[in-house]
Parts: sequence; structure tokens; C-alpha cells
Amino acid sequence: MALIVQKYGGTSVGSVERIQNVAQRVKRWRDQGDQVVVVVSAMSGETDRLIGLAKAIQNPPNPRELDVIMATGEQVTIGLLAMALDGIGCPSRSYTGGQVQVLTDSAHNKARIRDIEGANIRADLDAGRVVVVAGFQGVDEQGNITTLGRGGSDTSAVAVAAALSADECQIYTDVDGVYTTDPRVEPRARKLDRITFEEMLEMASLGSKVLQIRSVEFAGKYKVPLRVLSSLEEGEGTLISLEEDAVEQAVISGIAFARDEAKLTILGVPDQPGVAYKILGPIADANIEVDMIIQNIAADEATTDFTFTVHRNDYQRALAILKDTAEAMAARQVTGDDRIAKISIVGVGMRSHAGIASKMFAALAKEGINIRMISTSEIKISVVVDEKYLELAVRALHSAFELDKTA
Amino acid sequence: MALIVQKYGGTSVGSVERIQNVAQRVKRWRDQGDQVVVVVSAMSGETDRLIGLAKAIQNPPNPRELDVIMATGEQVTIGLLAMALDGIGCPSRSYTGGQVQVLTDSAHNKARIRDIEGANIRADLDAGRVVVVAGFQGVDEQGNITTLGRGGSDTSAVAVAAALSADECQIYTDVDGVYTTDPRVEPRARKLDRITFEEMLEMASLGSKVLQIRSVEFAGKYKVPLRVLSSLEEGEGTLISLEEDAVEQAVISGIAFARDEAKLTILGVPDQPGVAYKILGPIADANIEVDMIIQNIAADEATTDFTFTVHRNDYQRALAILKDTAEAMAARQVTGDDRIAKISIVGVGMRSHAGIASKMFAALAKEGINIRMISTSEIKISVVVDEKYLELAVRALHSAFELDKTA
Repeated sequence: MALIVQKYGGTSVGSVERIQNVAQRVKRWRDQGDQVVVVVSAMSGETDRLIGLAKAIQNPPNPRELDVIMATGEQVTIGLLAMALDGIGCPSRSYTGGQVQVLTDSAHNKARIRDIEGANIRADLDAGRVVVVAGFQGVDEQGNITTLGRGGSDTSAVAVAAALSADECQIYTDVDGVYTTDPRVEPRARKLDRITFEEMLEMASLGSKVLQIRSVEFAGKYKVPLRVLSSLEEGEGTLISLEEDAVEQAVISGIAFARDEAKLTILGVPDQPGVAYKILGPIADANIEVDMIIQNIAADEATTDFTFTVHRNDYQRALAILKDTAEAMAARQVTGDDRIAKISIVGVGMRSHAGIASKMFAALAKEGINIRMISTSEIKISVVVDEKYLELAVRALHSAFELDKTA
Repeated sequence: MALIVQKYGGTSVGSVERIQNVAQRVKRWRDQGDQVVVVVSAMSGETDRLIGLAKAIQNPPNPRELDVIMATGEQVTIGLLAMALDGIGCPSRSYTGGQVQVLTDSAHNKARIRDIEGANIRADLDAGRVVVVAGFQGVDEQGNITTLGRGGSDTSAVAVAAALSADECQIYTDVDGVYTTDPRVEPRARKLDRITFEEMLEMASLGSKVLQIRSVEFAGKYKVPLRVLSSLEEGEGTLISLEEDAVEQAVISGIAFARDEAKLTILGVPDQPGVAYKILGPIADANIEVDMIIQNIAADEATTDFTFTVHRNDYQRALAILKDTAEAMAARQVTGDDRIAKISIVGVGMRSHAGIASKMFAALAKEGINIRMISTSEIKISVVVDEKYLELAVRALHSAFELDKTA
């Protein structure tokens, strides 16, 4: 008998019929003898509807009261799913975040989980009930309702699994697992049976939006085995687990990419302490998120060149800010390009294998793809190329590292 | 500085614009220096929508889970109203039933309030905030969400007012107060400035559906001055208060009536102990509510005639049950009439005034209206007449007791 936490997103519970399908699936697990806790999101569209209603009253909405309103979305789903389970002879009980209780900090609309009280849930499980928990929500120490931000239900599920020392946390989505890369770009992309937390973090943050990144961090921190699988089809999905649990490790697990990037360069900046802060401070103040940052010695060696990337939507704003900064710093020039893409190869295996980078660069060179920027981390190598080469580059790397073949 | 509890029903908060109107009204009271607690219902139509959703999953719905779902209706309204207040510079904070907390028994869908913890609310009021409380809902001792049944928000408001020792509990509705009778039947009906709790109870239970009857009982028990007034127009409304507070008391305060009644009579029943139970037991078992009950000695003095009234919708079922009973008891005959109406004159003044009943009967006789049944209580006299005489009887009594004239 295992203790399983399952999470179903808004699409999986988006209609009466789908909720009944989820109930059938949950019941099958329970009938096998497992204890099951189900974490659910609001029905698809519901959170947007509630936010729209709130904004019609006050815009921007009061954050505390917005949480009071948004939390009702998941509260409706837990009631409906508990009823659906009850209706097919599977005893169950629903819990709001406050009832669990999921204790968070007081940062409304983007709260972080501090602690989870699991005693009530354990008692219900021991009594043979399925427990249905509202994702995305919690309460702070004063009892105010909080929400965790978009995608927070994944984090709720992992946190509940950690608190209960569950054997596995299953995240049901509309894809059947994590792929070596996006199958829409490389049709030979292969579903991975396993991936490590670190790899998943790099893959997720680079655009493989299967899981909310905080939930992966959380699962890694508390060593909760996490599985991504389809709520529509049967299948084992992809297990995300600790590196030491992997039997054999491929050198490269996958290729992530991000479109819609833009890069900005400020040339001929005096090479002295505090330069990076002077350049990026105003960008951050404007709430523009910066991704890659690269600094090079310039030709004259008394100055430096500084390049960073932002989302394409922020390009014009960032460019204007950077031009002001350049003027204030007496920098030589500001250049930019908003037609670039970032491609990364990810794998814990590269730690112990030399020559991965050169193999990557060779594969790109062979296709005549010019590399505009390079950045590396311990388990990832990222390159920036002209956007038009994105698909070609992904497919070239997928072949070069033989990702279509089972490891 | 007074402490006022205001309650707004579903129609008063039925749209974004109406919620903003309520906020303006609340702010005016607060700007006068009053402390204000606002109790709200779900937006009109919302509770029915949620019940519909629940029933699409399970019918009848699991009562505990139905409460989880229904309670979200008021939770959305409190967030929206708190935002609307915040938006016009009136600091406020919302509370769910669980946050207050409104402690109830565990009778899901029809819970009764046991206790209210008012400390949080008092602290917010002292900090200059308007407090917005979700009506209709509470929590039981185990922390399960409960609801009070239809119209429960009135009871929530009175209970909060009692817990805070509020100076007044104001129930805002779509009428501007309590009338001597229904103005649609008697255009000369007059709004009452005051009425006692007892009179209001008799009026409410007889069809003047301005207030939920439990809220009036509650207000009377805890001596909370209750005021019914319009959320659309300005005005003093009607104050419902203790008899001793009334300066001068009219003999009769109002005329209540109920259409859609039916009466059933069983003739020639053996006059012996237990007869009433034998007749009404099967009716109650079928969940048919019985209103008036009258027993008379029959002509032969060894048997008795027994008459009672039910809602017209239950007439055919009740008749079938009564025929079975009559057969089993060897009663002589069963008769019935489903075209009757009940008219009552109500007033605490009749306690100390003789001749009220004869004045009533004379007024009806003068119009040629035959009285089919009579029943009296301490502050009420009810008669049953043929339904076709209803309007005529109401107007005749309204004139006879000079209800169109200020007391």
C-alpha cells in the first residue's frame, strides 16, 4: 500500500464530465489499495473569470481581497470532486487550504508555503477516505486567505506530499511526460522515463512548461519523487527523481529553447567596480526580467562590453533605459537585436564528460549556424542564435546527441 | 458613535454597479462616525448556479460538500465589496464565516448558529475599518464549512449584531419597510414605523416574506433592534423592537394572508386519546407541513371532526393519505377544499382589547364573506375563507381597523 498524492490541473477538471473521469481514475488507485490525496486547481477559465470580476470593481485589485475571491475557484472544485467520488462509492472529504491547513507567509497573490499540518488528512486516509485538497491556496498566521500565484497547485501538491511523506507525487497534465525536446520542433523527440530534479529545473525554466518551477525546487528539496503524466491516456509518464536513484545516466537529457528573446549590448563601458549594477539596476527597477548576462573585455582593455537578454516584449523599454544609462556612463554605443532565440542542452551527465561543448558547437557549425552568445552552467550549455535558425539548431543537436535513441 | 450591522441581500449586490452603490452607502454611515459591519449574501443567481453545478455531479448532493461549494458565493461578494470600499478610500476587511468565526452545529445545509467570536471584528472596527462578513455560512466545531439554509444571511446579520452588542441591525431589501398588508392587494396599505418582534413573527410566518423568520426570533431573543429598509431609496424603514420600547401601540398592526392553502376534514372519528396523532402522524411522515389544526365535537358526541390545512401543492398527496387513515379508523367521511385562503389580523394590542374578534367577524359578514375556519393565538386571529374572497376580505379588514391611518 502506497500513499500517493495526485494533482489535476484546470483542464483536467474543466467540466462535469472531466471531474467524473478524474473520480474514476482516483477510485482505480484506491481500489488497488493505495491511499490517495488529490490536489485540484480551479476549473479552467474560472480563475480568469474571478479576476475579471475583481478588476471590474477595483483595478489593480486589493491583493488580500483578490485572494479571498480567487480561492473560491479551487473550493468549488474540491466540493465537486468529493461529490463525484462519493457518487461512485468512494468515500472522500474535501479540504480548503485553510482547513488543511497550508500555512504560508502573508505575501498575497504570491505567497510561499511555510508549513503544512497533515494530521487531519492522515486521520481521513486511515479511515479509508480519499482526501481532496484545494491547490493554489493557504492561510497566513493571522488566518488570512492567501494564494500561491499561477501554477501554484503543483507546489501545493508537492508540499502536501512532502508533509505526508508520500511515496510519489503525480502531476496529471495534458502531455504524457517530459520530452527530450518539443515534439512540434523535432518530431523524433522522445519521452523520457526519468529525469533528475536539476535537469527538470533547467528544462522548465527554459521553456518546457510542463511543471511550475517552484514545485520542482520544492520536490528536490524535500526529496519527493515527482511524476508527470497524462490525465487523458494511460502511461507511466516521466519520473523526476534524485540523481543517485538513476540507474544509468545519459550525457544529455534534453534540449530546451526559448523563442521571443532579445539581446542588448552596451559597448565601451569603463571597466570598473559597480558597472554591472549601474547597467542592470534601472532595468530591474522597471520590472524587466533579465535572463543571460555576459561581460567581455573590449578591444581597448580599459573598457568592457556588456550584453544581456530580455523577453522580446520588454525590448523597446529596455533599449530606451539602456540608452539613458549609456549617456550617463559615457559608454561608446548601444546595440540590440530582437530576433534571437536561446537553445540549451541539459544533462547531469555533462559534469563527468569532457567535450560536450565542442560537440555542440561543431554540430551547429556544420549547419552554418552562427553562435551569437554562449553561457554555461554546471549541467547546461546555452547558446543564442538568430531566431530563424531555431528549429534547425534544435534538430541538429537532437541528432548529434542521439536523443531519439533510448539511453 | 453607534455600532451598526447592515445586511444586503443578493439583489442588492447582484452586479458590479450595485456593489459599488452599497459601498457608497456604507461609506456614508462610516463618514458620519459610525462603526459599520456589513453582512452580505451571494450575488443574485449565484447560489442557484452553484447548486446546479453540484447537482450535475451528484443528485442529491453530498450535504457537506454542497456547503463547501455554496459558501463560495458569499466569499466572492465579501471580497468584491471590500475592494469597492477600499477603492473609494474606505479601509475595510472581509471575513468568511470560518474567519469570524461563526460557530454552528453540524447540520449541513440548515445549520444553526451556536456562537460568534467577535474579537477579530472588534479589533478591525477599532482600527477604523469597515468589516465585511459573509452571511449564510459558518463552521462547526471540527472546522467543516456549514450553511444556514435559504435566507440565512438575515440570521447571520442578527447573530453578528448580537455578538457585538450592536446598536442596530439593518436589513436592506427591495421594499422600504413592513406594511400593514400587501400593497398589491390593498393600495391604501401603510408602511409601519415600528412593529414588535412578536407581531413581525406572525406577519412573516403568514406570508409577508420580508425577513427570514429565524432572524426575527434571534433578534427577539437577544434583544437586537432590527430595522428593515430599502437598499434603493432613502428612508427610515420599519424598526422591529421590543414591545416595551413602543410609545403607543395600535390594537392591530397588520393583516397577513396566505393564498394557496387547502383544507382537509375527516368526519366522524372516534373521540378518544391519540386520535390527532393517528391522523397527523402519516401526514408528517410524508413531509407535508400542516398549518392550522382544528378539532370539533361532531353531532353525535361519540365521534369528532378533525380539520387541518396544508399547502395547495400537497393537497392531493394529503388527501390520499387521509383516505387511508379514515378507512383504518372507520371514520365516516373525508372532505377537502383546495380553493381557500387564510387571513390573519395581527397585533400585540389585542391582548388588552376585547371585541377584536367580533369586530373582525362583523366586517367580513358585512361583505357577505363566509368564514370556514377560525383559529386564534395571543396576538393573532386567523380565518379561512374561500379563496375568491381574499382581496375583498383584506381590504374590508384594513378599513375596519383603520390601518390606513397613522396610529
